[in-house]
Amino acid sequence: MINVTVWNEFYHEKNHEQARETYPNGIHECIKSFLQSDEFQVRTATLDDEECGLTQEVLDDTDVLIWWAHMKHDDVPDKIVKRVQDSVLKGMGVIFLHSAHLSKPFKALMGTTCNLSWREDGDLERVWVINPAHPIAKGLGRYIELPHEETYGEPFGIPEPDELVFIGSFEGSEVFRSGCCWKRGNGKIFYFQPGHETNPTFKIREVQQVIKNAVEWCKPELRSAELDCPHIQKIQ
Amino acid sequence: MINVTVWNEFYHEKNHEQARETYPNGIHECIKSFLQSDEFQVRTATLDDEECGLTQEVLDDTDVLIWWAHMKHDDVPDKIVKRVQDSVLKGMGVIFLHSAHLSKPFKALMGTTCNLSWREDGDLERVWVINPAHPIAKGLGRYIELPHEETYGEPFGIPEPDELVFIGSFEGSEVFRSGCCWKRGNGKIFYFQPGHETNPTFKIREVQQVIKNAVEWCKPELRSAELDCPHIQKIQ
Amino acid sequence: MINVTVWNEFYHEKNHEQARETYPNGIHECIKSFLQSDEFQVRTATLDDEECGLTQEVLDDTDVLIWWAHMKHDDVPDKIVKRVQDSVLKGMGVIFLHSAHLSKPFKALMGTTCNLSWREDGDLERVWVINPAHPIAKGLGRYIELPHEETYGEPFGIPEPDELVFIGSFEGSEVFRSGCCWKRGNGKIFYFQPGHETNPTFKIREVQQVIKNAVEWCKPELRSAELDCPHIQKIQ
Amino acid sequence: MINVTVWNEFYHEKNHEQARETYPNGIHECIKSFLQSDEFQVRTATLDDEECGLTQEVLDDTDVLIWWAHMKHDDVPDKIVKRVQDSVLKGMGVIFLHSAHLSKPFKALMGTTCNLSWREDGDLERVWVINPAHPIAKGLGRYIELPHEETYGEPFGIPEPDELVFIGSFEGSEVFRSGCCWKRGNGKIFYFQPGHETNPTFKIREVQQVIKNAVEWCKPELRSAELDCPHIQKIQ
Repeated sequence: MINVTVWNEFYHEKNHEQARETYPNGIHECIKSFLQSDEFQVRTATLDDEECGLTQEVLDDTDVLIWWAHMKHDDVPDKIVKRVQDSVLKGMGVIFLHSAHLSKPFKALMGTTCNLSWREDGDLERVWVINPAHPIAKGLGRYIELPHEETYGEPFGIPEPDELVFIGSFEGSEVFRSGCCWKRGNGKIFYFQPGHETNPTFKIREVQQVIKNAVEWCKPELRSAELDCPHIQKIQ
Repeated sequence: MINVTVWNEFYHEKNHEQARETYPNGIHECIKSFLQSDEFQVRTATLDDEECGLTQEVLDDTDVLIWWAHMKHDDVPDKIVKRVQDSVLKGMGVIFLHSAHLSKPFKALMGTTCNLSWREDGDLERVWVINPAHPIAKGLGRYIELPHEETYGEPFGIPEPDELVFIGSFEGSEVFRSGCCWKRGNGKIFYFQPGHETNPTFKIREVQQVIKNAVEWCKPELRSAELDCPHIQKIQ
Repeated sequence: MINVTVWNEFYHEKNHEQARETYPNGIHECIKSFLQSDEFQVRTATLDDEECGLTQEVLDDTDVLIWWAHMKHDDVPDKIVKRVQDSVLKGMGVIFLHSAHLSKPFKALMGTTCNLSWREDGDLERVWVINPAHPIAKGLGRYIELPHEETYGEPFGIPEPDELVFIGSFEGSEVFRSGCCWKRGNGKIFYFQPGHETNPTFKIREVQQVIKNAVEWCKPELRSAELDCPHIQKIQ
Repeated sequence: MINVTVWNEFYHEKNHEQARETYPNGIHECIKSFLQSDEFQVRTATLDDEECGLTQEVLDDTDVLIWWAHMKHDDVPDKIVKRVQDSVLKGMGVIFLHSAHLSKPFKALMGTTCNLSWREDGDLERVWVINPAHPIAKGLGRYIELPHEETYGEPFGIPEPDELVFIGSFEGSEVFRSGCCWKRGNGKIFYFQPGHETNPTFKIREVQQVIKNAVEWCKPELRSAELDCPHIQKIQ
């Protein structure tokens, strides 16, 4: 059993008509609904919750954290960001979705701007599988077709991914490294580009498959109790 | 002064009308013509030359080797392939163009299939700059536009590149890692996808710029006289 | 159940007194004896077997191949080497031990010299865990102590590993990247430095643990039936 | 001409007898003295200076920043840390020395703990060259010998380096990734482990050579004026 926490800033779905219609209960509940299963125990947390719903206790009990956010990145307190970052470095897996590329925890873990180019024209996107043997691509065909997505274009201001799983191409010819893996400390990180709040992207079977695969891939191998810089003794 | 050797199998341009019209003197002479300058001393060699024009003496005097080939990969003797591979591992730079992805020296250096998906429909291609600060992208805009190119699609059977500089997207939505860098031994390797024999791709200014930049990037840092596995003594 | 094939050139143990005493039934039988379990189905193969014991049928039925060799690298026919390499690229895992760094399949998969510096003085070696969260380091402490090993020193002529798990240090102060991971095609590759034929290294519990862990890590994610370069059609 | 700024917290050399004796004018002045040349224009800055001596103007005029710090990491204001980080992402090169592994700018750029194991016993260290063709190893032999250094041991909590140039080994058998390269945004980063404040490490010729080489390697390829996330238009 893998314990998953789905975090969502949950702003658009309460304030913008099109997002509300697409995800009436919020993106987090949509993700929870397709993840919840015999293998995954799923809880949700949002910006409105006390401490963003991410107390140390919750994080300690989370194997994999999923993060969706867009407009309210700055409302997440630095203390929470540090707590999330440290949990990843201790071994918790984390999946950043779509506009979470500019979330504080993602930027803290990457160390870079995480900037990209963007436009909103509802382009058709094809997300191509670059690495078919990667666990995150399991069960997919050559590409995933998304009828409408926000366009994200390169350059994407990230460290060279340890493994590149997907590259997306858009109707307007832009390309984007849409599925990227990194290991940082004991933890695994996956960034996945699809998932604009006004497109029903998370209702597409292959997108759900990717997220399920990513949860499996991200689950901790080893979890440290502490992050320290130990004073050692010479071996006798 | 950088010594460049441009190698071409030189088959299509003698046997296929459209290739001959595009490159009447061969692709190697076209590449030589835009490289030759105060900074680059350029010679050419082809499959027809004795020892493919790649004697040990020639390779020892070559800083950067450029390789174009397509139909006649198997006609390059294994002895020459080994000589090229060893020269790279000793420090010579090498640039593989387009269909050279299946050339013996490239496959020997990669250790993988180097397979890809392909179709010939004369698609428009845009080669997007992923890494604007990379020396090979110097002087380019956001992308290079190629009016017609052979379509190469992922998955591309290569080791994860050390640095990914370009991703191409085609009219039919396919994507391809079009500019890839690796270091192997003392040598640097660059693969560049554009350059089908019936398209005047090598006459496009930005393509020429990439190849010039790549020659600069590939030039040897250190050149070993030998490749050995030395017996050492314990430090006293 | 993971199907493991342990390949050994099986020369020293028949021809050199000290190796025979250390591994009277051969290194392959020693490795088989500690691997064989409910999780691993183990067979062996040696240079003396027809086709080196590595028919296509055997490889197709092998999840992870383990390779030990030293003096007889050149006696492995190129046809077998290609078969092993292709099996890895299709998805079979492979573990190269100690002097297998110069084996033909390892060199073919790396594309480099795989040279190193060496001396035989029976130094104490400590193999340090660099990446404690890596599955191959599971269950280990900070280092593995080997009372006597052949000294391998840098530079090691390999492509930069995708993941570095161990670094060894020797009594004479030499260092070596002793545990290296790569992905090539669909397959995973692990190189592990300890295991000289005259030292009882494979009888050390932690060394056995590493090899068991590596078998688990190397097992195929996806296995392709063929390696091809497909002609595709434009998506309509 | 490369503009170098050497930053030093400059605390030990004013407050601890042994550090004062080793570097009476501070580590920054020692480094400046061996760098200053026809190729390098060198200035210094310390924690005592207004804005740590690192105004936007100074950073904009710096090609490569060198950072030494140990006890006073927390005294560097977050505003300055962000300014340094952004300057690197825009293209400025940066070299972190020794105990700067826990400096705020290094940790911000890495996104990890940057923790390590340590002890102070004045061990002999040998810094082995892993990658002889790397520009930072230019002019060195097989290893650099440091009669006495603080011992740094693995695991080192960093992202897998893009290129590993040196591995150090200590009298007590510990190993450490002593020379690590990363690219982040447009900038290049080098971490070099030697340089304890009470050992005259920076007076050793090969250590000076490494730092000179690293300055050359780190110099900007491309410098962006801004870090932005641009809204683009569909190509017509």
